[in-house]
Amino acid sequence: MQKLSLPKGMRDFSPAEMLERKYIFNSLEQVFQKYGYQCLQTPSLENLATLNGKYGDEGDRLIFKVLNSGNYLAEVPKEQLLSQNPQALTPLISEKALRYDLTVPFARYVAMHQNDLVFPFKRYQIQPVWRADRPQKGRYREFYQCDADVVGGVSLLYEAELLAIYQESFAKLGLKIIIQINHRALLTALAESTSQPEKIIELTVALDKLDKIKWEGVEKELLSKGFTHEDTHKLQIFTEIPGDFKAKLLALKQAFSHSEIGLKGISELETIFDYANSLGVKPDNLELNLSLARGLNYYTGAIFEVKVKETAELKALKFNIGSIGGGGRYDDLTAQFSSKNLTGVGISFGADRIYDTMQALKLFPKDQITSTKVLFLPFDTACEKASLLWLTKLRKQNIAADIYPAGQILKKGLAYAHKKGIPYVLIIGEKEIQNEFLSLKNMTSGEQLTLSFEEVLSYLIAGKSSKLNPCNFLGLVILKASKYFLLCWKKVCYRKNASC
Amino acid sequence: MQKLSLPKGMRDFSPAEMLERKYIFNSLEQVFQKYGYQCLQTPSLENLATLNGKYGDEGDRLIFKVLNSGNYLAEVPKEQLLSQNPQALTPLISEKALRYDLTVPFARYVAMHQNDLVFPFKRYQIQPVWRADRPQKGRYREFYQCDADVVGGVSLLYEAELLAIYQESFAKLGLKIIIQINHRALLTALAESTSQPEKIIELTVALDKLDKIKWEGVEKELLSKGFTHEDTHKLQIFTEIPGDFKAKLLALKQAFSHSEIGLKGISELETIFDYANSLGVKPDNLELNLSLARGLNYYTGAIFEVKVKETAELKALKFNIGSIGGGGRYDDLTAQFSSKNLTGVGISFGADRIYDTMQALKLFPKDQITSTKVLFLPFDTACEKASLLWLTKLRKQNIAADIYPAGQILKKGLAYAHKKGIPYVLIIGEKEIQNEFLSLKNMTSGEQLTLSFEEVLSYLIAGKSSKLNPCNFLGLVILKASKYFLLCWKKVCYRKNASC
Repeated sequence: MQKLSLPKGMRDFSPAEMLERKYIFNSLEQVFQKYGYQCLQTPSLENLATLNGKYGDEGDRLIFKVLNSGNYLAEVPKEQLLSQNPQALTPLISEKALRYDLTVPFARYVAMHQNDLVFPFKRYQIQPVWRADRPQKGRYREFYQCDADVVGGVSLLYEAELLAIYQESFAKLGLKIIIQINHRALLTALAESTSQPEKIIELTVALDKLDKIKWEGVEKELLSKGFTHEDTHKLQIFTEIPGDFKAKLLALKQAFSHSEIGLKGISELETIFDYANSLGVKPDNLELNLSLARGLNYYTGAIFEVKVKETAELKALKFNIGSIGGGGRYDDLTAQFSSKNLTGVGISFGADRIYDTMQALKLFPKDQITSTKVLFLPFDTACEKASLLWLTKLRKQNIAADIYPAGQILKKGLAYAHKKGIPYVLIIGEKEIQNEFLSLKNMTSGEQLTLSFEEVLSYLIAGKSSKLNPCNFLGLVILKASKYFLLCWKKVCYRKNASC
Repeated sequence: MQKLSLPKGMRDFSPAEMLERKYIFNSLEQVFQKYGYQCLQTPSLENLATLNGKYGDEGDRLIFKVLNSGNYLAEVPKEQLLSQNPQALTPLISEKALRYDLTVPFARYVAMHQNDLVFPFKRYQIQPVWRADRPQKGRYREFYQCDADVVGGVSLLYEAELLAIYQESFAKLGLKIIIQINHRALLTALAESTSQPEKIIELTVALDKLDKIKWEGVEKELLSKGFTHEDTHKLQIFTEIPGDFKAKLLALKQAFSHSEIGLKGISELETIFDYANSLGVKPDNLELNLSLARGLNYYTGAIFEVKVKETAELKALKFNIGSIGGGGRYDDLTAQFSSKNLTGVGISFGADRIYDTMQALKLFPKDQITSTKVLFLPFDTACEKASLLWLTKLRKQNIAADIYPAGQILKKGLAYAHKKGIPYVLIIGEKEIQNEFLSLKNMTSGEQLTLSFEEVLSYLIAGKSSKLNPCNFLGLVILKASKYFLLCWKKVCYRKNASC
């Protein structure tokens, strides 16, 4: 017998987990579609040449490479094999690789289809990506990315729209969030305000850690990189400007009144803020954060990051998940693939972190993540036959219904319903068939009702017994009484041996 | 600039294709859920040891292997490298592989979780699989499989339920189908009725080709394998038994009256047929086909195969797609992974073939596969601002709405709507804002209506202009008239320089 395991960093998703994961993905997808974004899917395998060099040296190492099929050694020179140099050998025995993110395949797709696509091209993409990272808590080697991007649209309206999508998506999932916003131009202006304007990378790398290492840590790092005490003092004042989004912008406008690039960034953020307002984004959900960088070399305009709002509940749980989404504008999406370069702006959702947070806060609505609504438990094969007809009628009404085959003890069937999280059970015995009644058991409350099939139907559709109104009940009594009367009458006739 | 391409056998799915593909997958998923099947997902990468040896030698060769990360050559002996023997080298440099089908990972999952799972375990799984097959028309190296299985349930009710799922799924998609059914026991009985009872593999391999090579071809193959003329004569009579499902079973009952295994198969098929009837499966959709084998070594009970019904329309299109689904009962699902062996029965849907058939027959319902319903086309930034408020209101009503940013010519916006397949466009100019009216253009009919926002809302929700009833229209006229009157009155007041 084989020892069973999964490769490290890989996960199975059980039916219960899938219900929750689907709830997240479907919720996001509905919002994307409502905002006019269209679904795209690219293949899992890309040419290695498409991916190589796009994610830095470290990224290149983390790409999963696929071995060529057939005799992949046939054309490899012996010297090459003997040198035992994997870097040199890999391109000779592997041409394909698993996608590392959704952005590069998207750029490749856009470049390949730029003459057929209609721009601005608004697409969303929810697919797994693979990284040969060291697995650890919350980090997997296969995980889903969930991106929405607009390519070929210069309007800042798209930035605002993506903020609206963030707000609506997380509201839908029940998560309270803050969207932190910054702008590449403001980071440039910050650097230019110091004695080391060319050290913008070092500056932003340090600033980006503010959350984790506090100002003391940032200051230490900046000083070690050659910034002066005067610089750090100035930078501290900038990052600690008080007030809401508008107030901070106003203060910055004065501070950067002589910086062309600074004013450009401020003006863009003002426009985005106003657009976002028109689209229903609440100002309270937005926060200007000058320390936000998120990979400076990538973003060229606005930069976003979504954080879960720190509530008392989260604090009590000692739950600190970090960022659950991020994005921004990048101006060279297709530069590596096409001469016709296109600007883009996009956001991404951290599906696994969203899942973990919703789990911790118990945010999955129970009624929306149960699959099967009712289970028939027939006593014997005769009951099973009757049950099948009822079962078919329920399914015709789009009620997710199941049956536990006859010939098992009741306890086993109830355990089955319980384990599968089925909320209602219909117990069908001889008595039920004779009287044309069904015994409906509520698996949560334990309550048991005796109902006609029509009542069961109403009950399951309404999710409660509201349909068992007095009129129905009266009708039922009359029906039962008349059936009983008929039966007695037949018996009398039979006894008298008369022909009825 | 890089030359752009995809690895061979790989496909992008454009937004238009995704809408159609999602339509298929969602339809199937809804049916699976209604029948009590739960979604499972397994990772794309499995240990190579899990997959190797499960699909025969040819299958093993077609598995995509993933190169180990890091210095994968470090522990490979030099002799091994110099021998240039890929079969021997592969296990040393690759531990993981891409999943080849959904069945083996499912069996691995069930074996790993057999103590937690509640049986019968009804699961469905819709995920891509990868095969290093030679790509050709309709055959890809990455494609979706779509399976529903019950494991750990002996009742023949499950066979019937899967037939009901086939019927309902394909009815939902608008495809007319025939489900061909056979039973492993009948194939054994057939073999036992010849002079070569041990040659059951040869017999079924030949019979399985009946569709393609007709009886003459099958007979020739059987004779070449050592079957006698008497054998082939007998077999021809069996495969050509006339009548419907029940009639064929009756005839077989007589023919196999002395064959214990034959009678067992017949009895099981009778039970399945009766169960299927109770579940609403139409007898006309089922066909007993004694030549059906579908990989004899796999199935141990009933065997199913779904074919598209040959209609005049398909004949006219010269469209011959073959099987679009198949399945059956297999008794050794987890045998290779677990001591506790579990019986299973399952079906699978050929997603790509279903897609091609639906494309050919134009079966995708247009109203269900458009994503964005309406596009705002504002003339300038003032109009854009007003449009955003309306846009937000529409989205609040769950109407998928989009906006084309201001500053472009109308023609470009209309072309955008046309290319994206958006059925309605709202043209917003100065006039519209002043009069608080929206110009709604139907992109299909070209019809243009002038409506209040509330009317637009009703129109888009109802999908037609039914809400523009005379009363509404009268109200509108009164509203317009009174506004006009007010305006005139104001002007009069202003001229008189009086304070109104």
